[in-house]
Amino acid sequence: MAQISPLALELPELPPLDGVRFATAQAGIRYKGRTDVLLAALAEGTAVAGVFTKNLCPGAPVSYCREILALGLARGLVVNAGNANVFNGIAGIRAVEATAKSAADILQTKPEYVYLASTGVIGEPMPAQKITAVMGELHGGLGSAGFADAARAIMTTDTFPKAATRIARLSGVEVRITGIAKGSGMIAPDMATMLAFIFTDAAIPAPALQTMLAKGVDHSFNCITIDSDTSTSDTVLLFATGQAGNAPTEDPAALADFRRALNEVLHELAMMVVRDGEGAQKFITIKVEGAVSNASARRIGLSIANSPLVKTAIAGEDANWGRIVMAVGKAGEPANRDKLAIAVGGVWMAQNGGVAPGYNEEPVVAHMKGRDIEIAVDIGLGQGHAIVWTCDLTHGYIDINGSYRS
Amino acid sequence: MAQISPLALELPELPPLDGVRFATAQAGIRYKGRTDVLLAALAEGTAVAGVFTKNLCPGAPVSYCREILALGLARGLVVNAGNANVFNGIAGIRAVEATAKSAADILQTKPEYVYLASTGVIGEPMPAQKITAVMGELHGGLGSAGFADAARAIMTTDTFPKAATRIARLSGVEVRITGIAKGSGMIAPDMATMLAFIFTDAAIPAPALQTMLAKGVDHSFNCITIDSDTSTSDTVLLFATGQAGNAPTEDPAALADFRRALNEVLHELAMMVVRDGEGAQKFITIKVEGAVSNASARRIGLSIANSPLVKTAIAGEDANWGRIVMAVGKAGEPANRDKLAIAVGGVWMAQNGGVAPGYNEEPVVAHMKGRDIEIAVDIGLGQGHAIVWTCDLTHGYIDINGSYRS
Repeated sequence: MAQISPLALELPELPPLDGVRFATAQAGIRYKGRTDVLLAALAEGTAVAGVFTKNLCPGAPVSYCREILALGLARGLVVNAGNANVFNGIAGIRAVEATAKSAADILQTKPEYVYLASTGVIGEPMPAQKITAVMGELHGGLGSAGFADAARAIMTTDTFPKAATRIARLSGVEVRITGIAKGSGMIAPDMATMLAFIFTDAAIPAPALQTMLAKGVDHSFNCITIDSDTSTSDTVLLFATGQAGNAPTEDPAALADFRRALNEVLHELAMMVVRDGEGAQKFITIKVEGAVSNASARRIGLSIANSPLVKTAIAGEDANWGRIVMAVGKAGEPANRDKLAIAVGGVWMAQNGGVAPGYNEEPVVAHMKGRDIEIAVDIGLGQGHAIVWTCDLTHGYIDINGSYRS
Repeated sequence: MAQISPLALELPELPPLDGVRFATAQAGIRYKGRTDVLLAALAEGTAVAGVFTKNLCPGAPVSYCREILALGLARGLVVNAGNANVFNGIAGIRAVEATAKSAADILQTKPEYVYLASTGVIGEPMPAQKITAVMGELHGGLGSAGFADAARAIMTTDTFPKAATRIARLSGVEVRITGIAKGSGMIAPDMATMLAFIFTDAAIPAPALQTMLAKGVDHSFNCITIDSDTSTSDTVLLFATGQAGNAPTEDPAALADFRRALNEVLHELAMMVVRDGEGAQKFITIKVEGAVSNASARRIGLSIANSPLVKTAIAGEDANWGRIVMAVGKAGEPANRDKLAIAVGGVWMAQNGGVAPGYNEEPVVAHMKGRDIEIAVDIGLGQGHAIVWTCDLTHGYIDINGSYRS
């Protein structure tokens, strides 16, 4: 059993949400003595938006969700931990169909309104019968589990449950947005073995939800990386039950406060995923400015964030900015050695192609001993900027991933 | 002191080469009690070819060598270990100039015929005076050191010296090609903190040397990766002293056997660099076929080779082909889950989007316990193929890189 991440955060208060009922169960798919299946029942008329992995070998549940998303309506969600149902061929598709049908039957709806997500081992046959066997128990338990229980049931190598909540004003009504997430390895932009489910009682049509979710994910989950590996299973779903009583709207101005709150929930969940990065001992924020474009700044930021040499240097509490120079250079983006400036912990160490004049290592050494490491890079060429978040690369990562299946 | 890599190879017999004389010295740039500077004196008329890092923040010696390469002639080479002379601004350029001038003086030639290479820490001022201080001693010792001594003097985190040699027929004359190399981290295609110097007594004009070297590097050093990090310093130089007495030729047909021997030397050196990958316990060969093009196959191979999850699984002796599926999918190259096939140790584990029929894990488990791991991937879409070499990701890599400067 892995120790809880030293960067872990406590769960906030998570009041229930109108139109969402949870149940969890122990299906024993891979884990023993803990819940590993989550069922959510959603009120009639719940609108849904989704964003999925860009990995070209996605799992069967991802292909399935992409297909049904066109309908824009959801009545149920089934999530299991322990088996990702990826690369299981026709048997994987059958497992998806059986699970969706079983949940649809007890929720008295159609399978195409039941969303599915699976994470865990890739390429092992998915024992769907273990999920369908507990469907009756899940049905009976609906409403007995809260968001905290839901967050726990979807964990795999996570060391702490992840949830965030916000209140927003929408058309004169107070609405709530609450999200849960899991993920701690195989995390890279375009998502990773990372699942996030966000629920709101607001009434918002699916197309507007989709626009806000896609943009919000781009600035949160798509700006984090643990190990550069992009999972076959990641999924972010946003469900709007419409129970808050607001007049449904697609007007971007009317949705401004909702968007703000949604982005905060997405950001908070994404940061929690980084804080639970496999083996993470330090949380790293990388700010890039002065690039030729925002996209270029993000690619430079990710090149730094994904560099094993930068990540191991930070694990060793070594402000080795030479490795940051290397990572900027290898990004392949416009950069000029002699205009580059690098700061760690707010102290500019390197400027104009060399060590900054009068550079004093002492405050940087102190900063490196902390849990939160801040790197700033000024490319010196333009106005492009980006922020990327990651964690260090430690023995813990090797321990976890060198023996995952055993 | 790091233990010698379990994948290490013995140095071959390395006879001296006409037109090349070596000397080594202890300049104490960073290491104590070992040689850290190499001087090579080259016969008059020596032709030279070079290939350098594509990192956009290269070290001062790389910028300098690129510039003088246009002249195509070399009389000397100075290599130091311990300081890479990267990101040192104008002081770095001055250090390059001082070293080249000092060597040119004792070799009675011009600075623009003296090649330089430095590896080690980035961003620390380069103490060129430590090199110039031993230049007289190096001069006096010319001819006293052999290829094996040269290979040792250029090591940094390397755990064993690297050299390879071949004989070729050229215009009816027997010529020899001998190369030395260093490098064990920050290794990725487009080269890395990897230096290789190849010497031949053949007479071949610089343009023909350059063509053969560029092509040879592309199929050897540019197909290996340790950690996906691309160094600011890598350099491959090929010197032809012209002392073997062959009639100089640029005719590709006449150069066929020389090219074969050169490619073998480059391949052997590149494999040694992988075998000394920081923390490496296993040598991994990844063969990709059936991709839409050779370039696509190479990108897929590198995506697998650079995946921390694949590399840690192999370190844990786990034939986790699910992670290989993930790495194929994240490469962004054309791939179809349902046509993909994966073999480890010659056993096809996954085919047609699922586990191969009758797959027996036993021989694969045995294969994973060995030192040499073979992965084959058939994309099933076209004729493109590539081979990529890498090593596993272990605790040793974290140990070495979490405390490199201390």
